[in-house]
Amino acid sequence: MNLRTVVHLVSILVTFLGFSMFVCVPVGILMNDPDRFVWQMAFCGFVTTLLGIVGAFFSRGVHGKRLRSGVREGFATVAFGWLAALIFGALPFMLISDLKVADAIFETASGFTTTGASVIDSELVLRNGGRLAKGVESLPYCLLFWRSLIVWLGGMGIVVFALVILPFLGVGGTTQLYNAEVPGLKTNSDQLTPRIASSAKILWLVFLALTVLETVLLFLGGMTLFDAVCHSFCTIATGGFSTKNASIAYYSNPFIQWVIVVFMFLSACNFALSIKAVTGKRWLIFFQDEEFKFFLILVLAAVGLSTLLLWSEFHEIISMTGTAEPNTFLVSLRYAAFQVVSIVTSTGFSTADYNTWPAGIVMILFFLMFIGGCAGSTAGGIKCVRALLLGKHAVSEIRRCIFPRSIPDVRLNGERLPEATINKTLAFVFLYMGIFFAVALLLPLLCEMEVTTALSASITCISNIGPGLDQVGPAVTFGWMSASAKYLLSFAMVIGRLELYTLLVVLLPSFWRR
Amino acid sequence: MNLRTVVHLVSILVTFLGFSMFVCVPVGILMNDPDRFVWQMAFCGFVTTLLGIVGAFFSRGVHGKRLRSGVREGFATVAFGWLAALIFGALPFMLISDLKVADAIFETASGFTTTGASVIDSELVLRNGGRLAKGVESLPYCLLFWRSLIVWLGGMGIVVFALVILPFLGVGGTTQLYNAEVPGLKTNSDQLTPRIASSAKILWLVFLALTVLETVLLFLGGMTLFDAVCHSFCTIATGGFSTKNASIAYYSNPFIQWVIVVFMFLSACNFALSIKAVTGKRWLIFFQDEEFKFFLILVLAAVGLSTLLLWSEFHEIISMTGTAEPNTFLVSLRYAAFQVVSIVTSTGFSTADYNTWPAGIVMILFFLMFIGGCAGSTAGGIKCVRALLLGKHAVSEIRRCIFPRSIPDVRLNGERLPEATINKTLAFVFLYMGIFFAVALLLPLLCEMEVTTALSASITCISNIGPGLDQVGPAVTFGWMSASAKYLLSFAMVIGRLELYTLLVVLLPSFWRR
Repeated sequence: MNLRTVVHLVSILVTFLGFSMFVCVPVGILMNDPDRFVWQMAFCGFVTTLLGIVGAFFSRGVHGKRLRSGVREGFATVAFGWLAALIFGALPFMLISDLKVADAIFETASGFTTTGASVIDSELVLRNGGRLAKGVESLPYCLLFWRSLIVWLGGMGIVVFALVILPFLGVGGTTQLYNAEVPGLKTNSDQLTPRIASSAKILWLVFLALTVLETVLLFLGGMTLFDAVCHSFCTIATGGFSTKNASIAYYSNPFIQWVIVVFMFLSACNFALSIKAVTGKRWLIFFQDEEFKFFLILVLAAVGLSTLLLWSEFHEIISMTGTAEPNTFLVSLRYAAFQVVSIVTSTGFSTADYNTWPAGIVMILFFLMFIGGCAGSTAGGIKCVRALLLGKHAVSEIRRCIFPRSIPDVRLNGERLPEATINKTLAFVFLYMGIFFAVALLLPLLCEMEVTTALSASITCISNIGPGLDQVGPAVTFGWMSASAKYLLSFAMVIGRLELYTLLVVLLPSFWRR
Repeated sequence: MNLRTVVHLVSILVTFLGFSMFVCVPVGILMNDPDRFVWQMAFCGFVTTLLGIVGAFFSRGVHGKRLRSGVREGFATVAFGWLAALIFGALPFMLISDLKVADAIFETASGFTTTGASVIDSELVLRNGGRLAKGVESLPYCLLFWRSLIVWLGGMGIVVFALVILPFLGVGGTTQLYNAEVPGLKTNSDQLTPRIASSAKILWLVFLALTVLETVLLFLGGMTLFDAVCHSFCTIATGGFSTKNASIAYYSNPFIQWVIVVFMFLSACNFALSIKAVTGKRWLIFFQDEEFKFFLILVLAAVGLSTLLLWSEFHEIISMTGTAEPNTFLVSLRYAAFQVVSIVTSTGFSTADYNTWPAGIVMILFFLMFIGGCAGSTAGGIKCVRALLLGKHAVSEIRRCIFPRSIPDVRLNGERLPEATINKTLAFVFLYMGIFFAVALLLPLLCEMEVTTALSASITCISNIGPGLDQVGPAVTFGWMSASAKYLLSFAMVIGRLELYTLLVVLLPSFWRR
């Protein structure tokens, strides 16, 4: 293990985080934040940047020698990079709004992992004993911006950092970082590695273009520019932090809600497909992709069923702001589509408290929390491609009960998958369920809560969604939990974001042996 | 597909069921059941036996030719055999106690699959519009005995039928039946096939010996002989039907409760190990088996943690009869051990309503519902050996992230497992979770219920346990559900009992192609 390389890379990440904090300073000034808050944000940026630069300087390669980097260094960099991001990212929360350490870490982890689960509400006790009278809306603009920015950075920035910046610094092992950071299954046709840097640039452009486009549409729909930017950040990164306590229900505007539905859906599709579609102008490529078709059918089925249940059950739908909307088919469709897409894409915005909806819908949402979006997107969960692959593998195994001599043949997009890929995928899902159960088992021991709350809190954090059921539903926050429960869930969010293996590898004793 | 063979085998099964009904007749007479009920039971036995004999006669091999049987015939026999068992097994319930069809099918499925979930309570509406004033305790003795007997038959009788009787009838394909009926993973060392008939006889003897031994102990503990026999039947087959509404809590006798704990545990251990231990007088063989060690550690850990939680939380424990017992460490240990062992062995007896216990315990029990007992026993669930194997496979995959060139090496009891076994196991667990989710998703659509109820009803039926959480907890029954929900859960019990593949194979279109 070359610790020098690890320190160097983590330091560069910290420096980058420091720069990002400075971006929040002009935002605070423009939005007329009180001077104190702006200065505090600048101070956080200064400290973080300084520490990053000092660390990078002292760990640089001496005498023109390149820093060596291999598989282990890659894993260690990702693990310690996340630890550093959580600590430094939490600084503004602690300094500006007096959040307790566990709360600040939770909020930061939730941001960087694009989960969007929050502890901030009017009940949360701060370090100084006070409370935030108006919940999220009490935060100064510079901090609200930071909260949305880290979601955006988490969703894409860190990947871009790993793919675009590191190669220029002459550090190897980026494929490893890429594998660890970009979620999903790698099949040869999806691999962006051959021209990794240029692909990353296109990826970044697609990401940026989507963000700008959504910002414009939301602004046209009536959001303030500030809110439009923040919500776009959190939609495209499938994060789900809102600048309003009532989330998207604050804007009782069907146009805004539909725009967000569309962009949530787009953000959970494989970005590699988007790139191919954009660069090759092949717009039908989506429909040639089995995963996309599976995802589309899943979403349409869930939306259809939920709409019917909602429409047949309610005369009026209570939105998150508490106002009742007379129920028509279109209203049911809008509410159902919003919640289904928000959950399956692991975004986590809400327009209504689905816990008050028929249990059939709640069960559908709970199920979708496990599946998640497409691989190669910022969505969390097991991912559609894995679910599809496991389904095919299961059918192939059932078939082999009657035709025992047949060779297992699992194909994806016409390509036969090697046994190793299937094995790894199966192990992944088993680990996913194992960690889900482990976290759900530990939670009630750390903090009093009901079974549904524990189960859903566990999966919503591992799948990077945000809201769960019951006591962690969309109408409430995670603020009431004990500090230890918050740390556990922060860990769950990070391990889910990194698709399990990276952190588990670092926890393996043999990782540290020479 | 040779349908003649299938009809012949199913008819023999039906004949056998008819004989079993006659066994209930003298029991009814001895226990002074009203004549009407005894006659009705005899009538059911007569009709069933007659139909079975007629069917077997007309489908017999003509001109001394043996009936041909292959893989497909094996699968079809199991599937249609179960269907026939459910229909004929339900007759006494419908005739004697006027249960509606869905209720009778559910109760029969619950019995034969050794689940032990019941619909019978004082609220259940009968076909004649009346109710059973004292719940289960209103049933005549001959029917109560039938209810326990089918659990015992389901747990072992059908296996013995397939293994011992069929070979004498000169019908092939028994290995296929054996594979379908005896739960769990087959590794070479466990395989009983070389001397299948004699092994089955020993299996049957062990089964019988355990039943007799427990009956004697329960009788000495103060049960009536009738109750002792019924409870032994349901313990050894890990069924969990009780002749009392308050289940085992009716006997507020620590001795009886501990006896049942011990026999539940024994019944969930691999019977192949018991046979080896008995025949070879090698009593330490259990501790050389990795699955047994895993199971033991799992049970001890769960009991230990639950005891601590129970002990620290309550001043008194309310038993299922509603009486409060002052809480000491030993009382906590007894209640915790009883519930943990009852759930993990998939028996389903209860001494208290664990839904009123701390959520930490409820979560542990919910988790254990997935795992279940050891392979090669009558217990349900995914089975310990599979959980262990998947855990090992996952660790091996994590290791391969750092050592990509290492060969996957998953060992069980020192033997390296072939990839095919691991693949099949992984596919099994995926299917298990898939069916669990599918049933849990369908349930709230068929019948109004909460999320926890749906989730736990699904897993408790697939894992053949009995009680679940909330509205299907140990203090209530499944009687309130709609008929369609009861059919769905009956199907879930059978598919769980047959370890998924058998029924799924028959549902595959290519199974029916020539």
